[in-house]
Amino acid sequence: MSEVYAARRERLRERCAAGGSATALVTRPANVRYLAGAAPPGAVLLLGSSEDLLLCGAPPSGEAVEGRPDEALRVQVLPRAGGDAAVAAADAAIAQGADSLAVEEHHLTVTRHRAIGAVAPRLRLADLGGAVEQLRVIKDEEEISCLRIGAEIADQALGELLESILVGRTERHLALELERRLVDHGADGPAFATSVGTGPNSGRRGHRPTDRRVEEGDFLSVCLGATYRGYRCEIGRTFVIGTSPADWQIELYDVVFAAQRAGREALVPGAAYRDVDRAARQVLDSAGHTEGLPALTGHGVGLEIDEDPQLAPAAMGKLDTCVPVTVEPGVHLPGRGGVRIDDTLVVRPEADGGPELLTITTKELLAL
Amino acid sequence: MSEVYAARRERLRERCAAGGSATALVTRPANVRYLAGAAPPGAVLLLGSSEDLLLCGAPPSGEAVEGRPDEALRVQVLPRAGGDAAVAAADAAIAQGADSLAVEEHHLTVTRHRAIGAVAPRLRLADLGGAVEQLRVIKDEEEISCLRIGAEIADQALGELLESILVGRTERHLALELERRLVDHGADGPAFATSVGTGPNSGRRGHRPTDRRVEEGDFLSVCLGATYRGYRCEIGRTFVIGTSPADWQIELYDVVFAAQRAGREALVPGAAYRDVDRAARQVLDSAGHTEGLPALTGHGVGLEIDEDPQLAPAAMGKLDTCVPVTVEPGVHLPGRGGVRIDDTLVVRPEADGGPELLTITTKELLAL
Repeated sequence: MSEVYAARRERLRERCAAGGSATALVTRPANVRYLAGAAPPGAVLLLGSSEDLLLCGAPPSGEAVEGRPDEALRVQVLPRAGGDAAVAAADAAIAQGADSLAVEEHHLTVTRHRAIGAVAPRLRLADLGGAVEQLRVIKDEEEISCLRIGAEIADQALGELLESILVGRTERHLALELERRLVDHGADGPAFATSVGTGPNSGRRGHRPTDRRVEEGDFLSVCLGATYRGYRCEIGRTFVIGTSPADWQIELYDVVFAAQRAGREALVPGAAYRDVDRAARQVLDSAGHTEGLPALTGHGVGLEIDEDPQLAPAAMGKLDTCVPVTVEPGVHLPGRGGVRIDDTLVVRPEADGGPELLTITTKELLAL
Repeated sequence: MSEVYAARRERLRERCAAGGSATALVTRPANVRYLAGAAPPGAVLLLGSSEDLLLCGAPPSGEAVEGRPDEALRVQVLPRAGGDAAVAAADAAIAQGADSLAVEEHHLTVTRHRAIGAVAPRLRLADLGGAVEQLRVIKDEEEISCLRIGAEIADQALGELLESILVGRTERHLALELERRLVDHGADGPAFATSVGTGPNSGRRGHRPTDRRVEEGDFLSVCLGATYRGYRCEIGRTFVIGTSPADWQIELYDVVFAAQRAGREALVPGAAYRDVDRAARQVLDSAGHTEGLPALTGHGVGLEIDEDPQLAPAAMGKLDTCVPVTVEPGVHLPGRGGVRIDDTLVVRPEADGGPELLTITTKELLAL
């Protein structure tokens, strides 16, 4: 695996050099992990001119560190507690003879930026921008395999929940049970706070579970995901509680289902992000759901649950092969509830069968 | 409640005025919540010269917002998705005639700071520093009451776990069960990731639960906390599994217990932070546990689980009445395991009975 991380750092080094900086300081945790394999909390990565360094704060006694950093990286632990790893990295860059250092201005605080400037007044500080985030967009097969396993785990957890009795249980309990099942099946943990919405709460994006209990006739919408080896996937489904859904429920479900299918079908290499969004959005639009539509139809997933790209009306850029994204349109009718359907898929060429669906739980409207 | 938030903003306004800024931009989420009562994710607070404003991004459709902000605050929702609330706040400050704006440089990123500078080139940007964090150190009785309820919930969850069969269950399962029980008893959720360590993993600060199963003869250390109305408390205990602890376990437990008691007894108004730390530390020290001691003995709790003050060797400052802190010394022997004992207490004058212990689960060495 070590070569993978070294190759990622090499690609970043080329980008930096093209931008005029021989060295770079990576501070955003997911970016550090991407380039170093694993990193304790607060660790930063110096992409040096002669050597790459992972700098970590002095760990509190006996504190656990998850995973192991790339063995090809030199790891330097700061001698005293509370030392600033970013400042130490700037010091190390100077010691390597650097005259400029690209930093992640979108992550670094003003205070730390000033502190680096103070210890290294002759070091020209440039902006690395989202260079690492851009490298992270296209995944290798190892990364996709982690997402695939995470999706299987989420499918299993969801499938088991559907076999249990739901009426009378609270949103909070269902969410906790799903999270327990994720871990049972081998997840590192939930990929994000599991959302369970019943009745009027159904169909709300990011709904935080409440003490409302599942009732006959409710829509029940669930959104969950597993983290597996650091990679985070997402699945969302909506069900009806009781024997037969009401007409308005069937109609609303059909519209969201059609929108989600249109979004999935638009996932081809070379498609503009905004066109994928439009494909799903216009189905909702033409069914008369013009108010309060979601700001986005989907987003990338990976080491973070919400990565580039954004599938949104104003997004710039085009899909590549091997980019995993969610497609998750929804409609929420205030006071009544709503529907969300959410899959994680990987963009693949049509010759390879088109988009690879990772989350395979049925999207039929099940009455539970 | 509204007067509470208005009074907090007034105190901050006085501090700002003393620092030469009539207006301030608060971006750190816990600080926004402290001053506004509640705030959707990403909201920022402008302490204006004529009016205070809570600025929020356009919420994705149907997204849930927890709680309600102070009604005395004007809430402004940004018209378009992805709009930068901090930049909009700077705009609003100029509209109110401000010529300087204090920002939280320890929280604001370089990119957002630059964006504010770009839209408001004539606005002098100053540093608010940790002014809000400092206000947050001393709690009012309402805040302490939330911590007290959270501590009761954590005590209940822990108490129930101890009555169940533990041998053969994994660290992960025990952690998940504790979190479920926290929610059962009315917590908003866990205050931080629940830590359960068995055998060689016991006594490690922040240990992430693994698939290791509880065995006879193990130390079992547990650290958990409840969030109640936003306030986070913490309790940690260590137990022995089986009928009778080994001699080394009793000895180690007694040392950590004595250190923790010394720390608790040092919690008097006016005591220097470092003296509280030293009181606990020297007990461990003189028992020969000189290596790998924790970087700190305790810390403040409140809207965040790790707040000022730090009870650590180099900490500057003195305890005040009504400051809630943890006292949590521990020793971990690599390969064998260890002991941590962790309470949340509120500093009170001796005339009022001394420190108020919020987490009342017994600290006897129980054999389970």
